[in-house]
Amino acid sequence: MVFIYHRTIRFKDTDAAGVVYFANVLSICHEAYEASLADVGVELETFFGKGELAVPIIHADIDFRQPLKCGDDITVHLTAQAIDEHRFSTHYRVMASTDRPAATAQTDHICITARDRRRSPLPPQLQQWLRHHGEAAAVPNPEAGDG
Amino acid sequence: MVFIYHRTIRFKDTDAAGVVYFANVLSICHEAYEASLADVGVELETFFGKGELAVPIIHADIDFRQPLKCGDDITVHLTAQAIDEHRFSTHYRVMASTDRPAATAQTDHICITARDRRRSPLPPQLQQWLRHHGEAAAVPNPEAGDG
Amino acid sequence: MVFIYHRTIRFKDTDAAGVVYFANVLSICHEAYEASLADVGVELETFFGKGELAVPIIHADIDFRQPLKCGDDITVHLTAQAIDEHRFSTHYRVMASTDRPAATAQTDHICITARDRRRSPLPPQLQQWLRHHGEAAAVPNPEAGDG
Amino acid sequence: MVFIYHRTIRFKDTDAAGVVYFANVLSICHEAYEASLADVGVELETFFGKGELAVPIIHADIDFRQPLKCGDDITVHLTAQAIDEHRFSTHYRVMASTDRPAATAQTDHICITARDRRRSPLPPQLQQWLRHHGEAAAVPNPEAGDG
Repeated sequence: MVFIYHRTIRFKDTDAAGVVYFANVLSICHEAYEASLADVGVELETFFGKGELAVPIIHADIDFRQPLKCGDDITVHLTAQAIDEHRFSTHYRVMASTDRPAATAQTDHICITARDRRRSPLPPQLQQWLRHHGEAAAVPNPEAGDG
Repeated sequence: MVFIYHRTIRFKDTDAAGVVYFANVLSICHEAYEASLADVGVELETFFGKGELAVPIIHADIDFRQPLKCGDDITVHLTAQAIDEHRFSTHYRVMASTDRPAATAQTDHICITARDRRRSPLPPQLQQWLRHHGEAAAVPNPEAGDG
Repeated sequence: MVFIYHRTIRFKDTDAAGVVYFANVLSICHEAYEASLADVGVELETFFGKGELAVPIIHADIDFRQPLKCGDDITVHLTAQAIDEHRFSTHYRVMASTDRPAATAQTDHICITARDRRRSPLPPQLQQWLRHHGEAAAVPNPEAGDG
Repeated sequence: MVFIYHRTIRFKDTDAAGVVYFANVLSICHEAYEASLADVGVELETFFGKGELAVPIIHADIDFRQPLKCGDDITVHLTAQAIDEHRFSTHYRVMASTDRPAATAQTDHICITARDRRRSPLPPQLQQWLRHHGEAAAVPNPEAGDG
């Protein structure tokens, strides 16, 4: 169920403290999210810009435990969980050389119409993605939603 | 007490959805933090890389309410609060055209020695900064610390 | 005629070598370009995304003479020059503490239609901008263009 | 001789025009450079920050032919060429779906001492890298250098 994303830390990810700039760890988590969507057939250019629906992030949080350095080979372990008919959370564990995560993060997303930014039920592809990578089989049934 | 940082949203801040990429809002908050430190005389190159102490971010969270667009003139309203002798939180309200924040965020920081990454009391400049921008006068007395 | 853009180097601009990451100097130059356009009334969100015309960069080059560090207060000195009816060059001198530029750069731009990406004459606002910041009065007359 | 680097375009690479932000294409080229160095055993954290030698970029240029979009799978084809005992050029062809490059770029590098920023001969690892990825066997003999 866990989606695993491989990444090498690049020079551009780092800052003058010699480690990855804090906000860039969230960006790397988002890369894992993109890769997991592509993995179930989501067409990214449409999903992230030109589609009728948008799925913006409404909340993000991250805890940093170990700094990451240029050249480090890391993996991001991604799982997801529906919150309700319109919203879901994506969870990330950023793993470097040890068993303990270098960072853990979460992003919360809401599905809206691109035109008037009203809540919209999660489209079938995202429901499929939640079934693939969900932490539990708790994806709500859109037929029963509060729309 | 509130430090106010002015910023224009730049093209590089945006993504293919036409608005500021989520993690870049945290980067803009960090810019406000840097400006507030410089405002009390902190020498940034030393503070963010070459000094004996480091003050890495151990936690960040952010809530997004309104998207920001290229050309938007925003202000970041910064306040800070000591957590204990070694740690403090910085709070940010990102204000665009309306009275309601476009985003609110928090970063938590810990003071450590650069060499062996042990906890260290906040240096005098950070204590001064906390007094300037603190939400309350609750900066702990380092003489009484548990360090 | 020279447009001057003020900027403080931020932590995010830097990399693990302790100085501004090379490609970020070009991004800072682009910020100056954006500010110079806003200065003559160009609405940036439309200009950089939603308009009928697009003005993509077709070439960029940059020479680095001195590294820039976190906290440095710099200015970017911008001038521009029409190449032909559809194209122009923007020139940048990135000035830090000394009289000698820390970097000099150039970006070349072409005006195209957003829909089918065909060459289009520079719109009146860009012609006005070229007159304001041009190195010479050599803006071609669009009436005489080769369209 | 050509080093090939695979990369998927990520949401963070893009801007509000819906394509990769111009300066980020140079960053992607630099990623290929990093990967090619790691491929011959260069330890990246030392090479890009903590070593006795530094190899800063002194010039970069890039030509853009086709825009790149979120989700595009690209390859960067890298070759390199010594300029003299202290300097080399790295050449990049950014290939998307067609045979024609989406962009071509070049970065010029100089080897200096980190402490006093004086020219220094290219270290053995870089000479090995130039032999692997060189466009010609024209790596100068450092014994015969002009110091």
